[in-house]
This record gives sequence, C-alpha cells and structure tokens, in this order.
Amino acid sequence: MMNQKCIEWQFSGSEAAKEAAAASLGTYTSELYAMCDPNGKPILPPRSESPETSPAAEKAVVKAVLCGTGNAYAPSIGLPVAKRAVAEYLNQNLPKKLTADDVFMTVGCKQAIELAVDILAKPKANVLLPRPGFPWDVVRSIYKHLEVRYYDFIPEKDFEIDFDSVRKMVDKNTFAIFIINPHNPNGNTYSECHLKQLAELAKELSIMVVSDEVYRWTVFGSNPFVPMGKFSSIVPVVTLGSISKGWSVPGWRTGWLALHDLDGVFKSTKILQAAKEFLEINSKPPTVIQAAIPDILERTPKEFFDKRGSFLKDKVDFGYSKLKHIPNLTCYMKPEACTFLWTELDLSCFVSIEDDQDFCKKLAMEENLVVLPGIAFSQKNWLRHSIDMDTPTLEDAFERLKSFCERHSITGEASLKNVNGVN
Amino acid sequence: MMNQKCIEWQFSGSEAAKEAAAASLGTYTSELYAMCDPNGKPILPPRSESPETSPAAEKAVVKAVLCGTGNAYAPSIGLPVAKRAVAEYLNQNLPKKLTADDVFMTVGCKQAIELAVDILAKPKANVLLPRPGFPWDVVRSIYKHLEVRYYDFIPEKDFEIDFDSVRKMVDKNTFAIFIINPHNPNGNTYSECHLKQLAELAKELSIMVVSDEVYRWTVFGSNPFVPMGKFSSIVPVVTLGSISKGWSVPGWRTGWLALHDLDGVFKSTKILQAAKEFLEINSKPPTVIQAAIPDILERTPKEFFDKRGSFLKDKVDFGYSKLKHIPNLTCYMKPEACTFLWTELDLSCFVSIEDDQDFCKKLAMEENLVVLPGIAFSQKNWLRHSIDMDTPTLEDAFERLKSFCERHSITGEASLKNVNGVN
Repeated sequence: MMNQKCIEWQFSGSEAAKEAAAASLGTYTSELYAMCDPNGKPILPPRSESPETSPAAEKAVVKAVLCGTGNAYAPSIGLPVAKRAVAEYLNQNLPKKLTADDVFMTVGCKQAIELAVDILAKPKANVLLPRPGFPWDVVRSIYKHLEVRYYDFIPEKDFEIDFDSVRKMVDKNTFAIFIINPHNPNGNTYSECHLKQLAELAKELSIMVVSDEVYRWTVFGSNPFVPMGKFSSIVPVVTLGSISKGWSVPGWRTGWLALHDLDGVFKSTKILQAAKEFLEINSKPPTVIQAAIPDILERTPKEFFDKRGSFLKDKVDFGYSKLKHIPNLTCYMKPEACTFLWTELDLSCFVSIEDDQDFCKKLAMEENLVVLPGIAFSQKNWLRHSIDMDTPTLEDAFERLKSFCERHSITGEASLKNVNGVN
Repeated sequence: MMNQKCIEWQFSGSEAAKEAAAASLGTYTSELYAMCDPNGKPILPPRSESPETSPAAEKAVVKAVLCGTGNAYAPSIGLPVAKRAVAEYLNQNLPKKLTADDVFMTVGCKQAIELAVDILAKPKANVLLPRPGFPWDVVRSIYKHLEVRYYDFIPEKDFEIDFDSVRKMVDKNTFAIFIINPHNPNGNTYSECHLKQLAELAKELSIMVVSDEVYRWTVFGSNPFVPMGKFSSIVPVVTLGSISKGWSVPGWRTGWLALHDLDGVFKSTKILQAAKEFLEINSKPPTVIQAAIPDILERTPKEFFDKRGSFLKDKVDFGYSKLKHIPNLTCYMKPEACTFLWTELDLSCFVSIEDDQDFCKKLAMEENLVVLPGIAFSQKNWLRHSIDMDTPTLEDAFERLKSFCERHSITGEASLKNVNGVN
C-alpha cells in the first residue's frame, strides 16, 4: 500500500476571503472573548444572551411552523407576502410609495449590504463609506476588490456628516455614499434637514444614497428617526433593514433591501436586473421567517419598542454618567439610538498602551471585559462599549473599565480633564 | 430646478452574476412556470406545495422559538449544539468518527456546495462535476470563474460512474471530484464497492471527493445508502447535507459541510482555515433552526422516513409504468432514490421539436405541465420529471405528457420502441 504521507494532494485552501474575514466584527469579537479567562470573574458582556423578543413575533413564527406555510423554497427575490408587508410598513413614513416589487428579502441586513455592494461593484469603482461605520460594508468591499473611500463626521456637532469630506472624496468612479441611520457606533439619528441636504449633495455629485436603517426601532432620544426614502424624489435611494435589532432576533436572519426609485433609474441602469441575478445565485433567508413577516410587522404593539427604548435610554444614561469618572475616554455625545457608547481614547495619558487594539486586548485579559476597538469600525483609537445589559452587570462592567484605566494611566490618580467632552 | 432626466448617474448594475444566474435551476423553473396559462387547466406540478414535515421537527423549532434559544447570532461556523448533533448523526455509519469541529453549518446544502467550491477555487484550477448533475455546483463554479470538467455515467449499468471518463478529464490542476449520492437526477444510490473504487481512483489521482448526500433520506430501492465518509481512510472526503429533502423543509435553509480528514490534510492544506474565513464573511443559517437540529436529528422516528419512502416508491412505480406508453422517452433505470424520473428524449421521432428546452417550453405552453430540460443538469436532450405528487395529479401529468408526445411524434400513432430501455 502506498504511503499516504507521500501523496501530494492537488488541493489547498483559497485565501480569497482571508483579508475580508480579518476585518469582520465577528473576528475582532471572537479574538477578544478568547483572551478572557473562562475561570476568572464573569466574562462581560455575557455572550449569547439577547433581550427577549415580542410575543407577537414568536407567535407569528410558531404559526408559520405549524401551518407549514414556510417549509418550501421561496422565490429567490423573496416570499411575495413578506415583500408586500415590508413595502406597506415602510410606506407609513414615505410620500412616494413602494410596491412589493421594490423590496427584496435578504439573509439579515448583512446580506442586504452585500447585495448593495455586489450589484454595484465594477472594476475601478469606488464607494464612500462612513468612518466610523459598521464594518460589513468594508468587509464586502474588500472581498469584491472595491476601492473604499471614507467620509468623516463632526463629533462636536452631534456627529453630523462632514459634507466637505464627502465632496472631497467623490470622483467620477464613485457610485454611492453609504450611510447608517441611526448611526452605529456614533449613536445619533439624522435630522430631516440634514438628510435633505445629503440628498441634494448626492444629486449634485450624481451618486446614489444607500441607507442602512437596521437600528430604526431602537431610538430613544429627542430626534425622531427619518427614513432616507423620504428624499427619493431628489436622488435614487436604497434602504436596508431587518428585524434583527428591533425585535432582538438577529438569529432569525431575515432582512430586506428596498429600491426607492427616481424616474425609473434603477431599471435603466440595470440595477433591478443585477439584484435579481445576485439573489438567484446566493443564499436565501428562511422561508419560515419570511412567512411570519406580515404578522411580525403588523402585530407587534408600539409598547414593545417603547419599553425597549426606555430600557436602553436608562442604560445609556447610566453608562454615560459612569464615564465621567473614568479617565482619558471622551464621549462627545450621549447616544440617542442603538445600544452602544462610543468614546475617544487619549493614548497620551496611558502607560504602555499602544493603541485601541492593545487597550482592548489588555482589558479582556486583565478584566474579562470585552470592549471593541475603534479600528473594527475603521477609526483607530476609539472604543465601542455595549450598554445592553441589566444595571448591576453594567455597573460591574464600568467598575472594571475604571479600575483598568486608572491602573494604566500616567498618573496613578488619573486626570479627569477631557472626559465626556467637558473639563 | 435641474431637470432630473439629464443627470448621468454614476452607477449601473453589475453583470457578475448574470451568466451564473442563467444556469440556475430556479431560472429554468421560473421561466417554464411563467409560460403556463394561469387561466388554463391546473398547472402541474402544483407550485409551492410541499410534503408535510415530521411533527418532531415542527416541535423542535417551536421549542427553540418559545425558549428563545435561537434568537441571537450563532458563531459563523455554526451553533455548537448543532455541529455536535450533526457529527453524532453522521457517525452512526462511519468507522472514523467526526467531531463537532469537523462540521460547519450552512444556509442549506446549497451554501455547503458554495463553500466547497469557494474554498477550493484557485486561478487555473478545475473541478470535475457529474453530467448530469444538480446545477448549483456549476452555478458557483461559473461565478468563481472556475473551469468545469464533466465526467459521465453508464446508463446501461444503472448509472454507475464512468471511471474512464474521470481518468481522462483529470490533470494537475484538478482539485476535486464532486459526486451526488443518491444521485439527482439519475435516481440511483452507489454501492459500497463502487464508492470504494472511486476512493481508490481519487487517491491515485491525488484529488479529494466531495459528496452531496442531501437525498440520503429519500431512498426506497434495494441498494442501501452508503456515506462517502466511510472511505476517508483512503482519500480526503468532504460531505454535504441538509434537512431540506429528508424533512421536506428546504425553506428552513439549514445544512452542513463535514470534513472527513485523512492525516490532517485539511489543516495542512489550509482548507480548514479557508472554510472559517469564508463563513465569517458570508450569510449564516438561521440560529433558530440550528438550535432545533439536535431534536430534529435525534427525535424524528424512522417511520417518518419509511412512510415517505413508500410514498415515493409508489409514485415512481406509477410514473415508470405510465412511461411505457409514452413514445420516444427512454428511462434507463427505475429510480431507487430522490423524487424524479430521468428520461432520454429521442428527438429524431418528433416533428418540429428542436431540443429539450424547446420540448419543455411547448409542453408548458400547450399542457400547463412543467418538466425540466436536461440542459439544466448539463445534459442536453434529457428530461427530469417530478413524481412527488398524489396519484390522481401524477396520472393527470402523465396523461398530458403522453398526449403531447403523441401529438408531436412523426407518426401520428407513435412507435413505442426504445421506450423504457426495452423494445
């Protein structure tokens, strides 16, 4: 018998996904959790815990399971009843109405981003992404060999988009500006006026606006959420959404992409066709959840979101107040949406902390506390802190953070200047 | 105000998915259904109907929904309990045991195929696919710009793999042979002896074997199903599976890929790493179904599959007997697995039928009956007939097929020679 060790097998693993995988939030998160000591104090935030979803949503899925309405394949563009329900739901806030044909069902909002990137990616094309921003846009762009350009925000102006930075980065190969509204990780929602200005600017630059609105249900500040689709009479708009964040069910993997057309431009530029082709050959969201989408969207009472909003507001207030006593982290704005605090790290005040990644690694190793480095959101030396846990746990988390920062600060007793944007 | 019609928008749809989408089964199927007359006789097979799943599977998912165990994100390689349950299930028939680490959860068996193709695709590489075969392998290969080479079967020998055709097509850039077992659309299962010969041949050629075993639960012939993993002490094997076909729940979108390693070759060739990277940046199967996988696999009684097998055997017998009276279609083997009949079309006996696609289009238009053309499975001038419907419906379908064939045959009263492989 031939010695198997001598065979030179003719296969090896592709490295096509290597760079993109390294940039994903999952990779950063897993690495940090792996550095925690499983035998030490409780690892925070507790992993794999998630807030309860609405009974209406559970009931809708149970019904779909027991009636067998979601067992078969759905059309690759999505189950018609789900497409229609999403269109009707979004239409509540829109002057120009969507039809079911404008909506495509996707595997969570992530595949909606993937779809937006993949159907628009062309040789030499570039795309404008927010810095900071949710990294999936970046991940997919890397995978598609698409040039990524970043625009900035003005922290001092409640993280409004820096329109000058947008104007500066656009050239004839730019096809779109991606925004996140409400913004993860900045934690703000854009005003109607600001979005209208953005629409006018995009029109002037002849690019479309792609708006990730997955956090539209976790808004608890004074600024109401305004959908970008409202301005599709000015500029072509693509909006992305999912039930993941609003209903606390990312594991149900069901989202959508909606084309808010302007003068039939999505058809004439073959975007509609590209979306269909892409979805034909890629993964589909579970039919069994799609079948439940009408009930989930129509039957979840407003109280469910109000309660969740109050919970998050309470935690944000709590975390923000705790930050005041933690040296060398600046939070420019108390968030009015999403589930995070976003702080700038003043490295000059720390001893032997190299950068945000080094900070997060040491924090995980010393305190069993996972905070994500800004670089995971394309912005070095910032930090994203989750606040989505009960108050005692959150208190514990901020105590650990404080003790870590004090221990590593230049002065044993740390200076509190520049904390939370005030002296 | 600027006239919007004058704006030259800087975006257009990508054509990257165009060719691949055209080759997908969904595209062929949709086109044919669209040709049927919605106001004519009932369109067959009835679309969006699917057989009932097992109460055990329904119960498992309902439990996961109500307990909230499947609401959060799962790790990108899959939920640990699901990975473990799949490994244990597959181990029942394997001498070399899998661990949970060898299993990756995927969005149906389709993403498992995608994973197998994408992690192995390299510039200049080629892959050996079955002709005929399930087209998803082809679709992904086209999308990945991978050279596809085909091996053949011997219809007269119950569709055994033609090993000479395998040997002839392999060169130094071939990395794998993909097989489907039980085979869709041939409808046979491979004997233990045949699979062992294949393993020896693959070893000699230094390529791996990738085996799509999604139909392992719908076997009703005398040949039992033998998993390819049984031969992983000879050659590295990758097996693909899902609950879609066995439990009649393709809409639940949950499958897996298992690496049956040989001497650590999947690690040393970086396949393991590539699989993790790919899954990190691509769509994930619903956690809520993954959470139910242990119960689904462990608690579904054998009687469920037996009953389904009897049903299918009955329909295959019925359909096969009807074929004897339909001119110019040859069915070489009565299927012993899957849910189809696979026939060769003798074009020389038809008037003004150009090829298999033309046959299927005219059949859809004239009879409201959808039969898929062989070209969708890479084999021109064959036909795939679904038999997965109740007997009266199936009888209606074969009556329509018969009347269509008689109407288009050269002799008004058609010759019955060469039908069903016998004179």
